[in-house]
Parts: sequence; structure tokens; C-alpha cells
Amino acid sequence: MQNYFSTDFKIGILGGGQLGKMMLYDARKFDIATHVLESNTEAPSAIACNKFVYGDIQDYETVVNFGKEVDLITFEIEAVNLQALQKLEELGKTVYPSSATLELIQSKQRQKNFYKKNNIPTSPFTNFESLSELKSAYQNNEFKLPQVWKAATGGYDGKGVQVLKTEADFDKLVDAPCLIEEMIDFEMELAVIVARNPSGETKSYPVVEMEFHPEANQVEYVLSPARITDEIAQKARYLAEKVSQKFEHVGLLAIEFFLTKDGEILVNEVAPRPHNSGHLTIEGNYTNQFEQHLRSILDLPLGDSSTKKPAVMVNLVGDENHEGQVLYKNIENILALKGVTPHIYGKKETRPFRKMGHVTIINESIEEAREMAEKVKQKIKVISDEKL
Amino acid sequence: MQNYFSTDFKIGILGGGQLGKMMLYDARKFDIATHVLESNTEAPSAIACNKFVYGDIQDYETVVNFGKEVDLITFEIEAVNLQALQKLEELGKTVYPSSATLELIQSKQRQKNFYKKNNIPTSPFTNFESLSELKSAYQNNEFKLPQVWKAATGGYDGKGVQVLKTEADFDKLVDAPCLIEEMIDFEMELAVIVARNPSGETKSYPVVEMEFHPEANQVEYVLSPARITDEIAQKARYLAEKVSQKFEHVGLLAIEFFLTKDGEILVNEVAPRPHNSGHLTIEGNYTNQFEQHLRSILDLPLGDSSTKKPAVMVNLVGDENHEGQVLYKNIENILALKGVTPHIYGKKETRPFRKMGHVTIINESIEEAREMAEKVKQKIKVISDEKL
Repeated sequence: MQNYFSTDFKIGILGGGQLGKMMLYDARKFDIATHVLESNTEAPSAIACNKFVYGDIQDYETVVNFGKEVDLITFEIEAVNLQALQKLEELGKTVYPSSATLELIQSKQRQKNFYKKNNIPTSPFTNFESLSELKSAYQNNEFKLPQVWKAATGGYDGKGVQVLKTEADFDKLVDAPCLIEEMIDFEMELAVIVARNPSGETKSYPVVEMEFHPEANQVEYVLSPARITDEIAQKARYLAEKVSQKFEHVGLLAIEFFLTKDGEILVNEVAPRPHNSGHLTIEGNYTNQFEQHLRSILDLPLGDSSTKKPAVMVNLVGDENHEGQVLYKNIENILALKGVTPHIYGKKETRPFRKMGHVTIINESIEEAREMAEKVKQKIKVISDEKL
Repeated sequence: MQNYFSTDFKIGILGGGQLGKMMLYDARKFDIATHVLESNTEAPSAIACNKFVYGDIQDYETVVNFGKEVDLITFEIEAVNLQALQKLEELGKTVYPSSATLELIQSKQRQKNFYKKNNIPTSPFTNFESLSELKSAYQNNEFKLPQVWKAATGGYDGKGVQVLKTEADFDKLVDAPCLIEEMIDFEMELAVIVARNPSGETKSYPVVEMEFHPEANQVEYVLSPARITDEIAQKARYLAEKVSQKFEHVGLLAIEFFLTKDGEILVNEVAPRPHNSGHLTIEGNYTNQFEQHLRSILDLPLGDSSTKKPAVMVNLVGDENHEGQVLYKNIENILALKGVTPHIYGKKETRPFRKMGHVTIINESIEEAREMAEKVKQKIKVISDEKL
């Protein structure tokens, strides 16, 4: 059996953001060597890896050359050069998640087709090759507004998504392959993270509840476990595991769901990596999502995913009126609250709604944790001396 | 108020071992910049700090020059150059724990005198300036065997401690300032970690139970919380907090106790830093000891020290028959056990009884965790291809 601990075995991680940074905590904990490829030398995971390689994760040559130096390639963001991953697999390198899964997931059109083909419940949708194709379909009365528009690729953090209420909203769209989905009148948004290793061992995390910021279309709070019935929780976890298995996924897969008003569960979208909805597993669960990702891609036994204590996570995003050198105002006040752990990603510059960190609140009671999260949100300000 | 998070503020850490490595996880989590001074370029915390400085922590000039470059100096091992810390304080640098506390603690003679002076219960002892002074006291019938002999300074990991049963045992001793203590017929060894910040806020962790390896005089298992009555737990925590306050300590102070057969609690010795008995706080407590140390020395509010879940820690030490490039045999088997997290420090070479890592076991039941710890200990072997 391959030994990874304190050996020459190297994992190459594409991308050096906060997800990579938190993955490095666990790589360090296991003393597994890592190389990081990233084009920002001040990125959160520029340190704590064994080797930092400066370069563009979207550039074919750069990714292939980076991958040749390591034993296993993974990524912390899905916007990587797919052809390079395919090439590395041809060269006999292990790539997890595989290029085949990533190809399906990178395109929201292919993702939706995949759910349909595999009888995975999702909201009704139509794919279009261009903006003009979309417009003519509307003019031909092939669909009615409102609809949710999504760019086929490149969407992240609320970009590439637009609610179409009136015809005027078409002017906000870019000309790109896209899809429209029926708007779901949902009760709640849920998420489940599933880990799967190459041997096929599959473990899901307890269902979490996501509350979105009304303007920024970003997750503002995550609650674990979600305040739902056991029946719905089981249904969501079963479905999440099915999605991971159908994709023959290796690594973490985060599945976001709509819970409809009549108790139906629909897959919204997936991310093939550690996910914002799983950050609270660091403090709240027996095995955190980053360690679980490493266990998955290394074909090690998966860890216990269950809850140690109820947890709420608050995203720390840049104040909408500030831009410049970041200042975490009142952070000492939130440190005085019981069970509160801030995570500061290490980005030097703040800008409106930029993800700068998160705070986990652990409490015996999920309701109390949620109340405390509100307090945390009100107290701490991610600002700058320079106002916008 | 000084802001530490994502700023130019720098902590200098003397020593780059596993304690420093684990402290860096939390410095990274808070994005507080760190410099590490260490003379082994392959030490566990050679990476993940913002700057690694190669040098000897016992060398006066090296430590002073290192300290001048940072805003606050701390250490992860107490064998540092004391005069250099005094000099840095004179130069206006903040040093926590202070040179004054360290001076008291570095010498076991001064430590014991301090307990006596402050009415802190400890085992009866006598200090000697040299081996010959010790021997003549014995010849003059000033004490009887058995006794525990301790070197005044330099003891660590079972070195510098010797049980004197017969006169022949005097031959094993080095000629150095030393003390002898009456042997305590104890029921159990306990430990409490106390955090104290410069504002005087003091918080102790729940009492843990330490089980020692019979031969190596090293902690083999730590159990949290200790299987003792509430009354004894309260007494130990009260006493631990008193010790920290009497020292006017800033940072973590780990206090080791003997619990005697008749329920008395005696201070054995203290360590002014994160401690082996607190490693399980990473998984088991609301705030882990390394984060708590950072909060203490930065005069931030202290975190909640209470227990999330019962925990047992097993030290992973080098097998007594192996020396050379380390191999963690059967580590994948222990990863399959529920609630098990290995920490691999990253030392490349194993040798008999060298501390190479530890494993934390989290479980609803402390008894079950203890049983599982036994299994972990039996399964995993820290060996090398080269046998001794």
C-alpha cells in the first residue's frame, strides 16, 4: 500500500484561495507534501504548502507542467484547464476529481442534462446556445417570465446568474451559452456534502441549511444541522449520495438543494470540491470536510462525518462601502462570545462582498447559535480606512 | 486597539517543533504573521510560518537579533536563552511568557522554592548545588532512599529525572545542581492547562488524566475529562489558576499534579507553553490550547475552554527497535476507526521513543475512547525499514 505520511508523495493543488488554505491545514496535520499552483503570490495558500508554483490554472502548458511534478492532482476551484487534466490522465497521473466529472460539472447545461438522464429531481430547464437563441424563443412564446437565467460556464459567487422578470432584464445578459430554469418557490435552501473514494466508499454529511444575502446572492449563514424533519434529511442525503455515485465522483461533492413548499427536494447545482457550506465542519463535525477530501482522493478510509455540536457559520464579506487594505473592526468583541472562532483568509484588500473570512459559532442549541450569528454579523465590520 | 489580523504585526516564535507547528495552524487561521527561529531546517514548523530564520534559540545574539525583527516574542520550548529575552524586554519588546516567569520555571529548584513560598502544595524536597553535596547529605543521613532526583535545569521528556532506590543509583547521575523529592504514592497524575492574558483574565481547561509509559517516563495516554470527582476537579482547577496568577503568568501554563491516595493534590511541575496534555483540545474543546495561547499573549479575550466531547490522546513514539526514515505502518487501519484523527509531526527520522505524532480519539464515552486508544496503540507502528 502506498504510504503518504511523511514520504515523498506529493499532492498538487490547482488554485490557492481559502479552500486550498484550509485544505493545507489537514495536509500539514498528516504531513503530506503539497505543491500549489496559483497566479496570485499573495493568495491565502501561498504559504504552508511545500512548494508554491506561480502560474495560471487556466493555462494548458502551465497545468500540465505543474502536474508532472506531483503524484496526484486535485483542485480547490473548478475553473481549471480541463484539457490539461485530460492530458495528465493520459500521461498516467492520478487526477481527482477526474476530468470526466469536472467536464460534466463545469457546464451547467451538461449538469442539468445529466440530472434529467439519471432521474435526479431538478427544476425544469431549457438550454440555449446564445443570447439571440434565447430571445427568439421568448418572442416565439416558448417560455414565460419569470425565469432564472444562468450562464453555462463561469458562474461563481452569484455572478453568471440573473433573474429575468421582464423583457428589459434581457439587456443585463451576456451573449453566451446559457440555460433558463423555472423559478422555484422554495421553503429553504439546503446542502449536503458527499465524500467518495476510488474504492467506492461513500459518506454524506448531515444536511445544512443555507441562508442567502438578499442582495449579493451569496451564502450569509449556514446552519448545521438543518432545521428540517428526519424524513427530509434522509431524503436529501440519499439523493446526494446517489448524485455522487452517478457521477462516479472521487473527492468531495457539495450538492445544493431547493426544498419546495410541498416537501419536494430538487438538486440546484453541485460543486466538486470543499464548499462554503462545509466550513463549519472544522469545529462542528468529527471529520472536517478538508480532511475528508484528502482521505477521499488518497483512497483512505473516510472519516466519521457526524455532528459533534450544532454550528452556525457566518461569512465575513467586505462591507459594501469600503475598498482597500482590510481592517477587521471589532473582531476582539466577537472573540469574547462563547464558542466563536473567526477564520481570516488572509486577503489583504477588501472590496464590496468579497469573501474575506468566516466565523463559526458552536453551541448546544442551534437556535442560540443562530442568534449569536446575528450578533457576530452586526458587530464585526470588514472595512478599510479608504471609503468608496 | 492594536489590530493583529491581516496586518504587519509579527509574532516571533522561538523553537520549531511540533508545538510550534500546531500553533501555526491557529496563527494561519487568524492570519497573524509569524517568524520562527530554529536550528533544524527540517523541523515541523519550518514551513507555514511567514518567515523561517535559521539559528540557535540558546544563542544570545541570535535570539536578540531575531526578536528585534518582530513585535512580540513567545516560545514553544523553555530551553531558550533567558538573557536574550531580558535584553529584548529592556529594548521595549513584548515577551510572553515574560523572562521573569521563565527564569522561575526554567530552574526546578526555583520552581519548588516558589511553591513553598506561596503555600502551593507540592511534594517535600531539598535542593543541592552539586552531586557531591547530594552524596554527602546522604552519607550524613540527612535523607533516606527512595527519592526522586531531578536536575535543576535541562530536563525534558523524561531526561534529567531519576528514581534513586539504592546508593548504586547515584552513579547514574550527572554532576549538576539538582533536587530530590519524596516519592509520592499517587493514585493518578493529572494536568490542568491555564491561560492568562496581560489584563489578568484567567481560564483553566477541564482536568485531564495522564497515563505514563512505564519504561520511557513519557505520557502515553491523556484522557479528557479525567475520571475524578467534581470536588477534586474543582480543587485542581482552582489550584492551577492560583499557580498561574501567583506567577503573574501570561500565556499558557500547564500544571502537572499528583493526586495522592488520600485525595490530596500536589503540584508536580509546570510548563509555560502549550503542552502534550492539551493536544486533544484541538478536537475535544471549544477553543484549542494553541489558539488560546495566541489569544493570551495578544491580550485578546480568552476562548471557552470547555469540553465539546470526551477525548483520549495517544502519543505516537518511535518503536524501540527502529531507527531511520520513518514509516507509519497500519495508519490506514486506524483511520477507519470512528472519531480517530492522527497528527503526524513531520519528523523524517524515527528513533526509540521519539515523539513523532499523536492520535486523538473522540467519543461520547470516555471509557470507549480509552478502549479505542488501546487498539490504536496496538495497530499503528512507528517504524523504519532499518532495524536497530
